[in-house]
Amino acid sequence: MAAKTNPGRFFEDYAVGQVIDHAVPRTVQTGERALYHMLYPARHALYSSDLFAQACGLPASPLDDMIAFHVVFGKTVPDISLNAVANLGYAEGRWLSPVWPGDTLRSVSEVIGVKENSNGKTGVVWVRTKGVNQHGAVVLEYVRWVMVRKRDAASDAPETVVPELSQVIPAEQLVIPKGLDFTAYDFTLAGEPHRWGDYEVGEQIDHVDGVTVEEAEHMMATRLWQNTAKVHFDTTARPDGSRLIYGGHVISMARALSFNGLANAQMVVGLNGGAHANPCLAGDTVRAWSEVLDKAETGAPGVGALRLRLVATKGGAPFSLKGADGKYLPDVLLDLDYWALVPL
Amino acid sequence: MAAKTNPGRFFEDYAVGQVIDHAVPRTVQTGERALYHMLYPARHALYSSDLFAQACGLPASPLDDMIAFHVVFGKTVPDISLNAVANLGYAEGRWLSPVWPGDTLRSVSEVIGVKENSNGKTGVVWVRTKGVNQHGAVVLEYVRWVMVRKRDAASDAPETVVPELSQVIPAEQLVIPKGLDFTAYDFTLAGEPHRWGDYEVGEQIDHVDGVTVEEAEHMMATRLWQNTAKVHFDTTARPDGSRLIYGGHVISMARALSFNGLANAQMVVGLNGGAHANPCLAGDTVRAWSEVLDKAETGAPGVGALRLRLVATKGGAPFSLKGADGKYLPDVLLDLDYWALVPL
Amino acid sequence: MAAKTNPGRFFEDYAVGQVIDHAVPRTVQTGERALYHMLYPARHALYSSDLFAQACGLPASPLDDMIAFHVVFGKTVPDISLNAVANLGYAEGRWLSPVWPGDTLRSVSEVIGVKENSNGKTGVVWVRTKGVNQHGAVVLEYVRWVMVRKRDAASDAPETVVPELSQVIPAEQLVIPKGLDFTAYDFTLAGEPHRWGDYEVGEQIDHVDGVTVEEAEHMMATRLWQNTAKVHFDTTARPDGSRLIYGGHVISMARALSFNGLANAQMVVGLNGGAHANPCLAGDTVRAWSEVLDKAETGAPGVGALRLRLVATKGGAPFSLKGADGKYLPDVLLDLDYWALVPL
Repeated sequence: MAAKTNPGRFFEDYAVGQVIDHAVPRTVQTGERALYHMLYPARHALYSSDLFAQACGLPASPLDDMIAFHVVFGKTVPDISLNAVANLGYAEGRWLSPVWPGDTLRSVSEVIGVKENSNGKTGVVWVRTKGVNQHGAVVLEYVRWVMVRKRDAASDAPETVVPELSQVIPAEQLVIPKGLDFTAYDFTLAGEPHRWGDYEVGEQIDHVDGVTVEEAEHMMATRLWQNTAKVHFDTTARPDGSRLIYGGHVISMARALSFNGLANAQMVVGLNGGAHANPCLAGDTVRAWSEVLDKAETGAPGVGALRLRLVATKGGAPFSLKGADGKYLPDVLLDLDYWALVPL
Repeated sequence: MAAKTNPGRFFEDYAVGQVIDHAVPRTVQTGERALYHMLYPARHALYSSDLFAQACGLPASPLDDMIAFHVVFGKTVPDISLNAVANLGYAEGRWLSPVWPGDTLRSVSEVIGVKENSNGKTGVVWVRTKGVNQHGAVVLEYVRWVMVRKRDAASDAPETVVPELSQVIPAEQLVIPKGLDFTAYDFTLAGEPHRWGDYEVGEQIDHVDGVTVEEAEHMMATRLWQNTAKVHFDTTARPDGSRLIYGGHVISMARALSFNGLANAQMVVGLNGGAHANPCLAGDTVRAWSEVLDKAETGAPGVGALRLRLVATKGGAPFSLKGADGKYLPDVLLDLDYWALVPL
Repeated sequence: MAAKTNPGRFFEDYAVGQVIDHAVPRTVQTGERALYHMLYPARHALYSSDLFAQACGLPASPLDDMIAFHVVFGKTVPDISLNAVANLGYAEGRWLSPVWPGDTLRSVSEVIGVKENSNGKTGVVWVRTKGVNQHGAVVLEYVRWVMVRKRDAASDAPETVVPELSQVIPAEQLVIPKGLDFTAYDFTLAGEPHRWGDYEVGEQIDHVDGVTVEEAEHMMATRLWQNTAKVHFDTTARPDGSRLIYGGHVISMARALSFNGLANAQMVVGLNGGAHANPCLAGDTVRAWSEVLDKAETGAPGVGALRLRLVATKGGAPFSLKGADGKYLPDVLLDLDYWALVPL
């Protein structure tokens, strides 16, 4: 009679080439959309209105791209990050197909790198995760790497494999949702007049608004994505009695706040990288600023792409990111690098 | 390269006759109905059960009338009340058509009055707002007036225009939802036996129950309606570090509490006026009482109308409203004057 | 002109044989499913994925069995437990048909027992409650008994009737949902490999995870089921200023936590008994453990049944339940005895 509960995987349990089918598929519906609007100040029109989405060539309003991300990510937690010490980074993230109400998503990860740390107690594991819908289509893929505890410090180190990852997804590899057409885009209903051509590389935007976060909110958000990491829910799981806010909660909050200045950065199609710079706790007031890192055209009618840095903070002046030592300032929560689609 | 964030409009930016198309249309679904039941102790049967609504002649259960109000109102905030000092009043509010799951709503406002205050720093703006669905039908209209800051105290005052507004919507101007028929109304399933004829003008009802409100709840409610006013979310936005609760949250809470004694006041069809008498903060325990102000018949089968005063409080004895000085008592949060439809 | 608010029923108002049609029918939808996932760490695959449910022979994913329970229970509160001193027990609970999105539920109770207490101030009332859907089918039935205040200590005691109730529902009386077939059950997607045959009578499982509960969460959950008992919402309703958490919130939390070790205990079909051992308050960290009490086969293909004890705690070591005095230990919140369906 074996123990029935899941102890999570340790560093020794991962090997390059291993494929992990994550559990608990999830059918998402319009209820999840309503909840997203309740949990975040999300106002991008394409995810709020079926009519607006239809005027952009889509059959209806898809679920927010971050709902897709959170659902796919959440399923990986019991297999990838239950014993993780830290979530180290993201790369090569692409949204390949919108997620519609009624879709059923599951997640699959392949281990693409392992590297034991010199302390012999932990190692880094790289996985490429795919979110798959009921038709077998991949809706989202991304790489993330985490630091994981070894079960036994005495066990042998595996052969080091560090995957080569793109720093930035080339614009021509971005996948534009089928049918998307911004030529009849309604800037009034979208909320701002700024077109792709109005943004310049290097431009910085202070999104101005702030939201003070509460324990009940971040726990509900994290649970909604079936993310079960103890540190988000259990005040007895950390020595200081605090609950660590799921990094994805900060991503969604910052992305929603970025509406004010980037209302037309409608769809997220690429995740070039990201760092959770400092922990976020209840009581923090989250603000955001953005920087335009690059611009690209796409083949789709009226559709341009902006590469954006999205920074979430819990204080400090906008546009400050790192100290003289090259480290993130203590008030910086998130530094995300993504591609969004914007009307030309 | 212009600043991209929305600074909001100042008093000088409004002129009588101006029409403002508000941004971010919204498709509402059954998810919003579930959330409404989660956020408020809402139990009016017609908004809870498709079968009950069908037995009253409707095709299905509509979304709560206050969902319609909040969604339409929320869209106006970035254009009307971002720099508002105070929300001064409501008048001539009418629900013209039920909102159904799947409907997409947008809001349009016309400026119908402006009046600079004698201090030269602020002015009052009156707008008539309409909520419009995907068929172009107006589902709701109301007038509200707000006090707004001037951008520049030195700018000239506009010609004063104060609109003439009805104190009360005459009963014959109320719009009864198409098909509504209360002749087969099931009082047992509705929860109370009291008919229209059982209520007398002047009668006062203490709704007895109280709800202590939490930060997480009011922020989630307010966000759900895409209302972005900073004071509701950001503890750094007010000198005392508190978050002001959206007045509409108090309206919905009081209306839901009024079930206990007014379970058969099913549909809200008119808003004669309203005042947010004092601010509501987290930790307050909200209670409600009502007074029957008037009664009217309608042409619809089995359908009568009650004009009701709905008062929300955070303490004090029921039925006390104003002091000897004619001002609202400090424990009064809301004084609302509305028309509801009740079975004869 | 009678008082319009509901004072609730007192002990004298119940008589054996009396049938009470409870108010406020409710149409449940996929929004309620999304909310359940937000409020509880619910991960049983059959209630998360339409595809998974279809692979188990069902037409789609039903709503969680506890949603059915809470909705049916909530409707009884204004008639049964508004003046209740204590919720004393449950028995003979059976889920007779899954609840699907779009179903409309109402509740009916029959009084099956009354017994005045020797103090002359209170009495015990037994009711058998049925949840009925729009087709008139009973989806759920259970017996509960509560201690209720007398209106007048001087009133005569009724003839004592104590119903004979089964300690345990015999396995052959459990109703297996039509079409259920676990022969093609996907253990990987379900999250754990343990089959019916892997569990032994007497086996105990520590579900490991803990969730610290917040005021906003339990109030939203309780409201969602239209449960209006004051003690859950109003800090002025109890002398200590605390809000008592609805016992059903603890049931759902513990059941969801039991996924870790009982991921394949998919469907709840019987409730043999249950006790809310101690009050749960915001700030408590809820944990759970289970014990296998019995095992049974069912006629359905690939489907076995486990009788499980589910214990929720707010501290203490797992597997400790009662003290030397036979009373529940102070950290025990819930002791539930139920039947679940598990793949063979």
